[in-house]
Amino acid sequence: MKIIRGKSEMRAWSLERRCAGDSIGFVPTMGALHEGHASLMRASAKENRVTVASIFVNPTQFAPHEDFNAYPRTFEDDCRIAEDMGVTAIYAPEKVSLYPDGYATYVNVEGLSEGLCGRSRPIFFRGVATVVTKLFNTVLPDRAYFGMKDAQQCAVIRRMTRDLDFGIEIIELPTVREPDGLAMSSRNRYLTPEERAQALAISRGLFKAESQMKAGERSAESILKTVRDEMAGLNIDYIELVDADTIQPLERVEGRALLAAAAWVGKARLIDNIQYEVPTS
Amino acid sequence: MKIIRGKSEMRAWSLERRCAGDSIGFVPTMGALHEGHASLMRASAKENRVTVASIFVNPTQFAPHEDFNAYPRTFEDDCRIAEDMGVTAIYAPEKVSLYPDGYATYVNVEGLSEGLCGRSRPIFFRGVATVVTKLFNTVLPDRAYFGMKDAQQCAVIRRMTRDLDFGIEIIELPTVREPDGLAMSSRNRYLTPEERAQALAISRGLFKAESQMKAGERSAESILKTVRDEMAGLNIDYIELVDADTIQPLERVEGRALLAAAAWVGKARLIDNIQYEVPTS
Repeated sequence: MKIIRGKSEMRAWSLERRCAGDSIGFVPTMGALHEGHASLMRASAKENRVTVASIFVNPTQFAPHEDFNAYPRTFEDDCRIAEDMGVTAIYAPEKVSLYPDGYATYVNVEGLSEGLCGRSRPIFFRGVATVVTKLFNTVLPDRAYFGMKDAQQCAVIRRMTRDLDFGIEIIELPTVREPDGLAMSSRNRYLTPEERAQALAISRGLFKAESQMKAGERSAESILKTVRDEMAGLNIDYIELVDADTIQPLERVEGRALLAAAAWVGKARLIDNIQYEVPTS
Repeated sequence: MKIIRGKSEMRAWSLERRCAGDSIGFVPTMGALHEGHASLMRASAKENRVTVASIFVNPTQFAPHEDFNAYPRTFEDDCRIAEDMGVTAIYAPEKVSLYPDGYATYVNVEGLSEGLCGRSRPIFFRGVATVVTKLFNTVLPDRAYFGMKDAQQCAVIRRMTRDLDFGIEIIELPTVREPDGLAMSSRNRYLTPEERAQALAISRGLFKAESQMKAGERSAESILKTVRDEMAGLNIDYIELVDADTIQPLERVEGRALLAAAAWVGKARLIDNIQYEVPTS
């Protein structure tokens, strides 16, 4: 597995592969890899001739009070996992190379970036859309892989990729969970054993609500109450039912609905969601 | 000369050329071509194996009260000029293909987009940066050519291209002028003969100020007064002396200075500028 630090080297490598007729799969990450990331890499390695994974903790998606400095950095473990999953090359640029002096350019996906996580993290999706644009321009992939745990991020990236004419196929894969239901996250490392037990209320609430929807419940109010009751012991950021594409609130379950929740548990801000598509009769 | 309407077809054509080892020069235009555009095409055809010119009147850089509908559309003449200048392919997409329903993504270059033209046209540079990103993603050029008449646009595109890691070389060529000094512009077609004569005050003022700077004048106040006096008969939007890279106002001429002016003459909003680099002693 090759490790590439320079932008120009990465672009030249990718262009050479594309010109050789190799399809390129791309898995952008901030490192601290877990089984969620591994599942994306595995899928990419299966569906593409070569796979590039990026490891870059992106400063522009963190607000000053957030955990940019504390975010786990485990580069050597990450490389081992990536290599095991069949990744061909790691792109790990330096911060100063991606954000030089006088950096001024931001990509914003309006309307999708303001709700849910965007309310407590107002610059987050702008930072994500910007860095993914930069990575797409350097890695030049045919396909890029994202995890559905970050459902709003998926909606933002889908829209941005279409709107900016990237010609890249966005592939979204299911959230990977611990055996007890906790959604895998790099931030789970922040949890004490007690907090980890408390955090289970999030997935438990979502699963209960999912059963309700499968049983025919369509009222957002009733569904949200189920999750809220289950998560009552946590410091809730939001619990919302929205359209999975537009991220606009739903009063009734319809189309492809996204039931999403976020809460602070100890030092960790955790998010989780389930998506439910109403069967067409 | 090939005319390409589809995004995917354009990208496939360009990728094929890049993979065949051909360098691609790119001249983005809104059509209504004049000798300024022709000079960009000529330079590109000389410096690159193939040249793509785009013709697309971009709606997102016009405010509702501006001249999007009136903007001259002269596609057949444009194609003839482009072919004469050695253009290999015209990319002329449909509006609905670049801006489909639910379009939501914008590229913004902060700090450079707000002064000069940005004050009276607050969404203009966002529209320009967005469409150029889209065109770059489709045309995949090695080099892109812009005219220095749009000096602030050049600064925005330079910064954006660097910031978003496009790996494209931006080449800026001198303003092309009519024999009497008027900067060439597609909007000169809006002028009556009387207005055209009045419009000469802009370039006349700039040339006088340029002579002053060459003679050693360094005070912005004095230089701006020269231009203001000459343009006194016009409906002035702005006359400013700024740093050519940061677009921040200068009190004294230093480094690479941009002296820029805009005025409404009849139905046309005209811009012009000169750039002056202080000789290092």
